[in-house]
Amino acid sequence: MSDEAAARIAFLRSLRAVRRFADRPVPDAVLADVLEVARWTGSAKNRQPWELVVVRERESLQALSTAGDFAGHLAGAPLGIALLMASEGGVRTTAVDEGRLAQNLMLAAWAHGVGTCVATVWSEREAAAKAVLAAPDDRTLRTILSVGYPEDEAARFLSAGPGRAAIPLGRKPLDELVHVERYGNRQR
Amino acid sequence: MSDEAAARIAFLRSLRAVRRFADRPVPDAVLADVLEVARWTGSAKNRQPWELVVVRERESLQALSTAGDFAGHLAGAPLGIALLMASEGGVRTTAVDEGRLAQNLMLAAWAHGVGTCVATVWSEREAAAKAVLAAPDDRTLRTILSVGYPEDEAARFLSAGPGRAAIPLGRKPLDELVHVERYGNRQR
Repeated sequence: MSDEAAARIAFLRSLRAVRRFADRPVPDAVLADVLEVARWTGSAKNRQPWELVVVRERESLQALSTAGDFAGHLAGAPLGIALLMASEGGVRTTAVDEGRLAQNLMLAAWAHGVGTCVATVWSEREAAAKAVLAAPDDRTLRTILSVGYPEDEAARFLSAGPGRAAIPLGRKPLDELVHVERYGNRQR
Repeated sequence: MSDEAAARIAFLRSLRAVRRFADRPVPDAVLADVLEVARWTGSAKNRQPWELVVVRERESLQALSTAGDFAGHLAGAPLGIALLMASEGGVRTTAVDEGRLAQNLMLAAWAHGVGTCVATVWSEREAAAKAVLAAPDDRTLRTILSVGYPEDEAARFLSAGPGRAAIPLGRKPLDELVHVERYGNRQR
């Protein structure tokens, strides 16, 4: 295995949610990289069924932090990025594309040591959150990312944050995740 | 900007779908890295609502290549990875998690120079595709990845492939993608 491949894998493997942010702005050059990686994200039939709203106004971030019960981290983030999805085509496929976009945004920020956390907008509060962004009726808003430098070293190992109960850390073992050829076959 | 950050951004930015594969197996060490990155993918409430089925049997890959009209590339891939999603919690949130997982799988393969392409399973053919994998009734199968080394240098610039019409290449310009503070505000 090449050193380059190993470094890339270690980088991908290291992404964690960050919910507490330092009082330090995200540089324009970093944001530009994040948006460019977002722009090149793949999607079904290359539809690119998305637009982004970059939010720095504190009042807006505070309002958006109430869009879901676990979105409190947005209130303390220097930057938010809202993912506005096209409704056409149905939620079935645009939500998968949305996840691809979110992961790419998070990794691009992390490439610069900038942390992110997903805030999920609750259906019944979507209209209010969209109003903050003046988003058109025919767009879906389900995901907003908090973006900022981690407050401290511990910030990436926290499972709890503002307005959020602690959730289990870590991941299931590989044996519970992977089947070979057919479901239930664990041989590898 | 550090060289390391620039290299990571260039790597993320370079991912493209590959639909034509070389007749060369994917090494076990590469697959192990891909599965480990998958395992560490973040998900809403850390639910990890997924399992993977690794498929190498030619007969299975051929059967799965008919699960969607644009899934033909699976027939010629040395390896397929099926994403089985938990149904609980509703399609709304597990589909976003599914996209995050798919993107991480694709990037982990690409870290090794191994290409991938998303095959989307059509709803009305999902039962047949699940039967190939002996997948339980309460799992959702919507995404299968083709995985393999690109057939040649051109393979990552192809928009067409087996059973697939050409689709537009490239991406929308940043100005059509990004809004600032409120929808329609293009100042940056």
